Amino acid sequence: MKSACKTQLSSARNGQITPEVEMVAERESHLTTQEISAEIAAGRAIIPANPLHLEMGLNPVLIGERALTKINANLGTSADASDLSEEQKKLTAALQAGADTVMDLSTGGDLSLLRKQMVSASPVPVGTVPLYSLVQDRSPEDLTVQLFLKELEKQAVQGVDFFTIHSGLLFDHLSLVEKRLGGIVSRGGSLLARWMRCNNQENFLYQYFSEIIALLAEYDVTISLGDALRPGCLADATDAAQLAELEVLGELTEQAQSAGVQVMVEGPGHVPFDQIAQNVRLQQQLCNHAPFYVLGPLVSDIFPGYDHITGAIGATEAARHGAALLCYVTPTEHLCLPDEAAVKEGCAAFKIAAHAADIAREIPGVDSLDHELSRARAALDWKRQLKYCYEPEKIIDLSSADPSSDDQHCSMCGADWCAVKNSSVQKN
Amino acid sequence: MKSACKTQLSSARNGQITPEVEMVAERESHLTTQEISAEIAAGRAIIPANPLHLEMGLNPVLIGERALTKINANLGTSADASDLSEEQKKLTAALQAGADTVMDLSTGGDLSLLRKQMVSASPVPVGTVPLYSLVQDRSPEDLTVQLFLKELEKQAVQGVDFFTIHSGLLFDHLSLVEKRLGGIVSRGGSLLARWMRCNNQENFLYQYFSEIIALLAEYDVTISLGDALRPGCLADATDAAQLAELEVLGELTEQAQSAGVQVMVEGPGHVPFDQIAQNVRLQQQLCNHAPFYVLGPLVSDIFPGYDHITGAIGATEAARHGAALLCYVTPTEHLCLPDEAAVKEGCAAFKIAAHAADIAREIPGVDSLDHELSRARAALDWKRQLKYCYEPEKIIDLSSADPSSDDQHCSMCGADWCAVKNSSVQKN
Repeated sequence: MKSACKTQLSSARNGQITPEVEMVAERESHLTTQEISAEIAAGRAIIPANPLHLEMGLNPVLIGERALTKINANLGTSADASDLSEEQKKLTAALQAGADTVMDLSTGGDLSLLRKQMVSASPVPVGTVPLYSLVQDRSPEDLTVQLFLKELEKQAVQGVDFFTIHSGLLFDHLSLVEKRLGGIVSRGGSLLARWMRCNNQENFLYQYFSEIIALLAEYDVTISLGDALRPGCLADATDAAQLAELEVLGELTEQAQSAGVQVMVEGPGHVPFDQIAQNVRLQQQLCNHAPFYVLGPLVSDIFPGYDHITGAIGATEAARHGAALLCYVTPTEHLCLPDEAAVKEGCAAFKIAAHAADIAREIPGVDSLDHELSRARAALDWKRQLKYCYEPEKIIDLSSADPSSDDQHCSMCGADWCAVKNSSVQKN
Repeated sequence: MKSACKTQLSSARNGQITPEVEMVAERESHLTTQEISAEIAAGRAIIPANPLHLEMGLNPVLIGERALTKINANLGTSADASDLSEEQKKLTAALQAGADTVMDLSTGGDLSLLRKQMVSASPVPVGTVPLYSLVQDRSPEDLTVQLFLKELEKQAVQGVDFFTIHSGLLFDHLSLVEKRLGGIVSRGGSLLARWMRCNNQENFLYQYFSEIIALLAEYDVTISLGDALRPGCLADATDAAQLAELEVLGELTEQAQSAGVQVMVEGPGHVPFDQIAQNVRLQQQLCNHAPFYVLGPLVSDIFPGYDHITGAIGATEAARHGAALLCYVTPTEHLCLPDEAAVKEGCAAFKIAAHAADIAREIPGVDSLDHELSRARAALDWKRQLKYCYEPEKIIDLSSADPSSDDQHCSMCGADWCAVKNSSVQKN
């Protein structure tokens, strides 16, 4: 093991403004570097930036309840679909569509190579679930903490910025799952449940948590405390199992932060729209405002094929109330591994959620693009609209207006009926 | 003029349970016919059902803050795109996708024929903006109330169920519009503004409101009080112009209801997510809880091409707080007239919004499909999922699972990694 490095958290606690704080401050123009550093010191914000990834060109990102809302894109292969070049395309699509972080959730193919490729190609933080590599060629019940720590170190050296680790799932929680309609829908969670049942032992990721965080502190890899018991359907939302795990995640947050490790906490899942604010508040209370990283949440179960929308609706509400990082959901969620097009659709939906929430949070200046676009729209200036909109290709492909003509109406209303045109004619 | 018919409102006030109340009660299983009738009598709910359309096979729909949330699909031609068979296809797509009402907003082609065709083909209520027909071959400044009343009667006889009429826009409001970034974005509103300025007179739809509602009472056509000053961008949301018009709409609501006319009130538009609840509460207060019919609202301006999502996010929040009818927004909003595919996408996004809001409102039994689907999902029973999901074709087209095999995992996780499979194996 190499000697302990300073983490962003320990530096912030020492009152030091790191180069990474300076870098993220450019984007977070509503916060000073001092404010950012204070948020990190308090554990309310993180900069998941493995120094080894920084050397490869990582552009650091601030995640926290006072930061701009960020989105994560889940990428990666499965045993049924594992192709290196396809993963490369998906990464490019996610980056172009504005993903602030990505996760390599590969479970098929050469996992080490896939991970190495993604870290080196990604200018945004990369997260993984280290457990996955260990059970690719091994029965889950044969996992040991030694194997796990070895894998953690390997991936830390590869430059991974954050690890999802399901340390909050306890043996006692398993009985609470029996009452559920949807059971355990977290892959990591279901593997650990199997391990605990087969070995009749407490979750080794909980038992050896001190050893795990000691290693993360050395490399300044952020821990993303996994929610093995996130509800996978509305019926299980905010239930005893979910809340029992969240309470443990609160304790682990404090323990990890005490060791200088940056922490975020993962959250649901499927949650009725009216329970989302409550879910965020509970997490803030139990985890002392450590950044909340939610998956959706999806506000209905019955819309497979449209779950990027179902998820974006929940994500807007979550981010408005303080969720810091929104894990996208793609149109193929529950159906198949997303392809490049699905990755793009998922990112777009969640960029909308993040931006709408930031506007709702009244972050100064965050709606300036909206105002500029609307000014261009009111002037029927299509060329200028291209400059301020999220995806200019949509205007180029879909708008029926002819920017080269003097009469730049679109086919929605036609020339004589264009309210924008009629209004502006009246002004002149 | 034919002799006065009883409206749903006057019947409800007389304590009569109409056949239409009985019919809508089947779907609104959380309400008794007495409760529905009481809501209608109080003006808090409507059944827009022109008796002449009922004769053609209209299946009536209840719209109100205690009813299930409904969605409207805007259809119709423009001068740049007017094709009868295309409109037929769009209507079919909207109905299949679950539109509860449709509006014929045609402004190009043979408007009378298009309208007649839509009313006769539509089993759901049809709305129009009667003003449009009058300016197809006439300069807006030449409009008169006589022409308008004649057109209303013509369309009432054709069986139209509800009319959008912009009576709330006053001459005094025009100065408030000057301060706006986006001006007037309502087509009807911009035409009337032009009429008022050219003729230097008060809006004739306000001046002759008594005559208009007398005619609507005769035919039991519902009035949808148009919001000519809805904000067309975030910068104009909840501004003085919008609120001034809303106050007038409140007065007109009372006046129309006194005359026995069923009323709903149209609302924005583009509104920051955090202002939506306030917008709904204001409307409820000023319009005595007459059903609120919102367009979106869109929670950002910068996502052309994705405005069905931007709108569905706002619509969920609006419906949660009491908006009764959600006018869809399609992906081509701000760009071009929607085609069949865009109509379908818009409907799907707004069905999600309506359903998610109804779950959030905790309407008894409204989440039963979600629970059934999740039960089938937890059993990896893809065939049964088809029965409970919104659009079975999405599962058939996208799912990589093979329902004929014993091992019904999908490619998202692959066989060995399927959390659902792993969880159910453990139970067995």
